[in-house]
Amino acid sequence: MNTPDNSPAFDRLFEAVASRGPVCVGLDTTVEYLPPRVRESYASPAEAILAYNSALIEATADYAACFKVQIAYYEELGLAGLRAYAETLRLVRSKGIVVIADIKRGDIADTASRYARAHLEGEFEADCVTLNPYMGLDSIEPWLAVAERRGKGLFALVRTSNPGMRDFEALELAKGGHVYDEVAQRVAGLSDRGRGRHGYGALGAVLGCTERQEAASLRQRLRGVFVLIPGYGAQGGAAEDAALLLDRHDGLGNGGVVNASRSILKAWSAAGLDPALTGLEEAAEAARAAACTMRDDLAAACAPGGAAK
Amino acid sequence: MNTPDNSPAFDRLFEAVASRGPVCVGLDTTVEYLPPRVRESYASPAEAILAYNSALIEATADYAACFKVQIAYYEELGLAGLRAYAETLRLVRSKGIVVIADIKRGDIADTASRYARAHLEGEFEADCVTLNPYMGLDSIEPWLAVAERRGKGLFALVRTSNPGMRDFEALELAKGGHVYDEVAQRVAGLSDRGRGRHGYGALGAVLGCTERQEAASLRQRLRGVFVLIPGYGAQGGAAEDAALLLDRHDGLGNGGVVNASRSILKAWSAAGLDPALTGLEEAAEAARAAACTMRDDLAAACAPGGAAK
Repeated sequence: MNTPDNSPAFDRLFEAVASRGPVCVGLDTTVEYLPPRVRESYASPAEAILAYNSALIEATADYAACFKVQIAYYEELGLAGLRAYAETLRLVRSKGIVVIADIKRGDIADTASRYARAHLEGEFEADCVTLNPYMGLDSIEPWLAVAERRGKGLFALVRTSNPGMRDFEALELAKGGHVYDEVAQRVAGLSDRGRGRHGYGALGAVLGCTERQEAASLRQRLRGVFVLIPGYGAQGGAAEDAALLLDRHDGLGNGGVVNASRSILKAWSAAGLDPALTGLEEAAEAARAAACTMRDDLAAACAPGGAAK
Repeated sequence: MNTPDNSPAFDRLFEAVASRGPVCVGLDTTVEYLPPRVRESYASPAEAILAYNSALIEATADYAACFKVQIAYYEELGLAGLRAYAETLRLVRSKGIVVIADIKRGDIADTASRYARAHLEGEFEADCVTLNPYMGLDSIEPWLAVAERRGKGLFALVRTSNPGMRDFEALELAKGGHVYDEVAQRVAGLSDRGRGRHGYGALGAVLGCTERQEAASLRQRLRGVFVLIPGYGAQGGAAEDAALLLDRHDGLGNGGVVNASRSILKAWSAAGLDPALTGLEEAAEAARAAACTMRDDLAAACAPGGAAK
């Protein structure tokens, strides 16, 4: 177990991206994504999921800047699932790798402080979390206080990659711009809070990569804001779209990570492996290859002369 | 244990309000709210909280339409806390009383379905949950499907009672109205889904009671939408404000419940009881008296000729 590192999470993440590329492996793990043989060799879904996560973390760590764990997949399994969730966070952190808890919590005042203590320290401690800003800055502020103190990172939802994003996030405002522009501006306005040596504040943003123009223009206004980019792979986003949302540092994309979940978790299936014959090792190897390809695609799209200019 | 009732949750809640009034007792329980003597007589915070909840549920049930459990207070204590959370939900439901899980989850598609399964069935099963609509209707829809099937109720955040509500919820839109007006309209537009015999759909709304005019005008447009009204008591809302947000049925307020948490959980303190001498029974008795007073104040405010006209 590495000693805990209280330096700003986005400094650690920046350095991980610089050395291993911007892939974020999403551990949105359900037994439905596991090869039947693997699924059947464990006594419970939670045990199978934990074993699968463990194998995939080992297999993809060379090509991943970080991991993201979607808590809904674990809450679904009740207390046993949440035990596997906590253990997954510990596995990633024990390798000195940043783990993002995709929890999208959003609540105010005292409640927000309690959520912050729940997810930035203690049994469910992660390095970064995702937050929902709907209720306003007083739902972010208590998290920021804990994040600054403990070297954690936060990603507030700004513009997501789902179709329903049009319903409220993209509403046009009387003063111009959209709801997400206002959220972006308020997030950027807090970028001096907990700013690390690579220039990013403790409050980051979730920025979907499904509409190029719009998302890229938003990125311009999110200076000093580290971004989490969902929507890659299974959700339809391409390397070029994601590359537009990364800053350029020494000809490489940085200042953000690009998440893929299903395309890595189910890489064994996309690779055409026989469901009846695929074991943990083969599934992990397929995940490793998928992460490697994704890293290479993103590097090509970010390179000078690459698809994203 | 009563047999499970799959009739629409808002029918059951309507009938509870008609017979016991619209008080929703919020079990946002932390050991900090407990008299020291009670706190110290349990081996762990989670055990103390569960014992306190159990005593308060018994003591206030005569004056409460329902209970609301804020999950952040339990997540804060990790797995032991979540065990106490699950047990608290079970305690309320075993009395045939509706329990609202205040979880404010908001995520899309497959993730939303998993959250819905986590909180509307299984180990963490509640009768109703609160949801965050920021990501759009595709973050609500999967919940609605489960809610219709299992007789559950949902409360989407529309307009909350915290100061930060001004940051995003209250932004003015180019087409007129505010963000929360648009959310209200979309919620009302779904009120035919899972509609029960008392006329309320399975999708309800959270509507803060801190600004009378605004909230009352919103209520008018939320026809057929059951509301959860926070902000009473410790958060500054008064009975008259809350009464404005209830529909009138036979001269009584209904179509909504009014939550109070701290003013009931810490009633022993507000009543001037000696912290060093107050035991579980005295704290529960003070909570009972506070719930009774709140019910009476709301009834007076709702009555013809009452403060809220």
